[in-house]
Amino acid sequence: MLWPLTTQRTAAGALAIGGVELAALAREYGTPLYIYDEATLRDRCRRYRAAFAAAYPATTVVYAAKAYLSPALLAVLRDEDLWLDVVSGGELALALRYGFPAARITFHGNNKSPDELRLAVTHDIGRIVVDNLLELERLGALGAALGRRVPILLRLNPGVEAHTHEYRQTGVIDSKFGLPTLDDQAERAVAQALATPTLDLRGYHAHVGSQIFELAPYRETIAALYRFAAQMRDRYGFVPTELSPGGGLAIPYTEAEEAEEAALDDLARTIADAVRQETAAHALPAPHLTVEPGRSIVGPAGVALYTVGAVKDIPGVRRYVSVDGGMADNIRPALYGAAYTAALVNRDARGEPLARVTIAGKYCESGDVLIRDIALPPLAPGDLLAVPAAGAYCLAMASNYNLALRPAVVFVRGGHARLTRRRETLDDLLCTEVMEGIED
Amino acid sequence: MLWPLTTQRTAAGALAIGGVELAALAREYGTPLYIYDEATLRDRCRRYRAAFAAAYPATTVVYAAKAYLSPALLAVLRDEDLWLDVVSGGELALALRYGFPAARITFHGNNKSPDELRLAVTHDIGRIVVDNLLELERLGALGAALGRRVPILLRLNPGVEAHTHEYRQTGVIDSKFGLPTLDDQAERAVAQALATPTLDLRGYHAHVGSQIFELAPYRETIAALYRFAAQMRDRYGFVPTELSPGGGLAIPYTEAEEAEEAALDDLARTIADAVRQETAAHALPAPHLTVEPGRSIVGPAGVALYTVGAVKDIPGVRRYVSVDGGMADNIRPALYGAAYTAALVNRDARGEPLARVTIAGKYCESGDVLIRDIALPPLAPGDLLAVPAAGAYCLAMASNYNLALRPAVVFVRGGHARLTRRRETLDDLLCTEVMEGIED
Repeated sequence: MLWPLTTQRTAAGALAIGGVELAALAREYGTPLYIYDEATLRDRCRRYRAAFAAAYPATTVVYAAKAYLSPALLAVLRDEDLWLDVVSGGELALALRYGFPAARITFHGNNKSPDELRLAVTHDIGRIVVDNLLELERLGALGAALGRRVPILLRLNPGVEAHTHEYRQTGVIDSKFGLPTLDDQAERAVAQALATPTLDLRGYHAHVGSQIFELAPYRETIAALYRFAAQMRDRYGFVPTELSPGGGLAIPYTEAEEAEEAALDDLARTIADAVRQETAAHALPAPHLTVEPGRSIVGPAGVALYTVGAVKDIPGVRRYVSVDGGMADNIRPALYGAAYTAALVNRDARGEPLARVTIAGKYCESGDVLIRDIALPPLAPGDLLAVPAAGAYCLAMASNYNLALRPAVVFVRGGHARLTRRRETLDDLLCTEVMEGIED
Repeated sequence: MLWPLTTQRTAAGALAIGGVELAALAREYGTPLYIYDEATLRDRCRRYRAAFAAAYPATTVVYAAKAYLSPALLAVLRDEDLWLDVVSGGELALALRYGFPAARITFHGNNKSPDELRLAVTHDIGRIVVDNLLELERLGALGAALGRRVPILLRLNPGVEAHTHEYRQTGVIDSKFGLPTLDDQAERAVAQALATPTLDLRGYHAHVGSQIFELAPYRETIAALYRFAAQMRDRYGFVPTELSPGGGLAIPYTEAEEAEEAALDDLARTIADAVRQETAAHALPAPHLTVEPGRSIVGPAGVALYTVGAVKDIPGVRRYVSVDGGMADNIRPALYGAAYTAALVNRDARGEPLARVTIAGKYCESGDVLIRDIALPPLAPGDLLAVPAAGAYCLAMASNYNLALRPAVVFVRGGHARLTRRRETLDDLLCTEVMEGIED
């Protein structure tokens, strides 16, 4: 799914989402603007739950907050009965502040600080996914200090290579994440966890990577986890009752990628089949499963809206169309070479000739190009362009580069728009600056 | 210069900058922490001014705010009599709010909005560097509406290729910046500017790129600007009185790059010689020069300070040392493949054996690696690592990825530290969120 479910052209040819014309949103809230379609958000949550309910009922669907997190989104996730996966004290504190049930929170990360671990243990969050031996030691001591028995999974690095950008491969051997199963570190962690009375080891986690179109790496990862689990059962008698093969399912960002998108039913069946097969092969009991989608929940629900400014022809080379956002609100093209598409939304351009243009951002950097070589109708200053699949890892990684004010966010639903984040102001940017000693 | 001027090891072997031990700063302000050495900041400003005063006295040194901008830094720049180059309404508003003289502000950017242009014209800023024909038209109309004659330069794209990362090449033909001189756009802009009574065309600007070690591209750029200037003189009688060959001088980020660093005297002489040679060759008068350093002013003055957390050996592959910051405060390694170095600062490790390690950030992304393959003494959790040359384009591009709280900033000078930016809090991150309609 490239565009939100409720996307449609009005009779006049303008684009609407959630029953609200994007041009009207631009007039009311300005651009750049990020728009989330609540129907799509809820649909993605429900489809995930339904797909696993059919394929493997003992599954918990955990939303990976790092893709995007806000109080408004949190309310939807809670409403849809998802769990939440956090990777920092900030995400955890936000979730707790807005009443997300602590027991439904899991905590990931390769270098959790003592303060972050303390916050997690104090609030009795659902699971801590332990990345390394230092964390295991700190957590054992914290459990003792705080009088808790901490439910944990161990993050393993099984050395599975997924086909994705190098930055998003997390399961390869040369990774900062997890305990390598190919030497004795993972085994030492199991032994140490079992020997620590304040730790309650439930099972294993491995994360294949991110933006994964193929399902085979999930099978391989689950097989690798169970090879290790069987060894540990044989050596230490430990039988895992929980298993998390992570998240990482790809979403299409362009029309060309739509055909590659894996169905959630196929993902659920692949994981369920692999778990059943591996547990049978190793005579281990069927575990409770956890899956951790982030991008594939929020990505397709979000659309970025920009206003066209300068249009510049470099004869024989390229036509640059500059918009009023760019790498400060979406760094993915510059960071990963990510491809996006866009549509003209404020008027009906059907029948107009398409021309190849490049959509540039407004930031002072040549790398600030949102879309290279896209065929669009003639564009003029003031036109509005919408970029789909912008719900994940755009706002989450947004910066104030060039002192850009980060965009407003609206949720749309049933013909109504609700501002969930107002645009930043210069005062917001300055509120942490300390002015003492500065003469005016 | 890789480390700030005042960097020294204390008798006990700890690292100090500005007479302040970094370990003491970490204890007081926490980590990650960004430290600016005020002596180095001022020294860089003065060296730039002195180098050009010697080589070409009619030069204005303009600090490019996009590298880093804060009220505290602004006060130093004003004190050192630099001008300021802004690239957004946010940077302009900040400068105006803290009393930076509007007449000493220049405004760059490929897609300035009507509001940004209005702010600039209303405040009679020093120069607007016009990027394209749309901007020229808008600016002419604004001048008429506001009763101003707006002093401008035209940004030309002369098609000079500098050896730097593709994202930082700004003078190549295929760039979103400037008016290509190789077709008639630049000429049309000159004619249009001259025909617009509310525009006061002063001359030309071109920017070679960023992080440029070689000086030859400056010569080529100035030659290209004067070829064009001579044509325009011949066709329209326009004689430029001002010229800006931009900024872009490289700084060393690692020991290996220190030898490549161009001296400011050489930069000034190269530019001065090229201007004298080209003006003589084309029988044009010597212009007033503007140079626009950003990175080479603030870069070497800034140091990032991190605390070591988990240390993970992957036998035969790599030792990962995780720190408590990473791509949220410094995205340059992930974005440009930028290399950095680091030093252990909290204890004397001379004589200890060095081992090759990789410094990983704490963010949930495999690409979050600060330094690959650096030789360091044995590191343990709690050790402090300082990364030099962190003054430019780190804080400026910092994000709240993983809901990271952006670091505190201190200025050090003569044995004293002054907090100029406090660490963000979760409340800061949430202050733009709109809570209506969210049940708790």
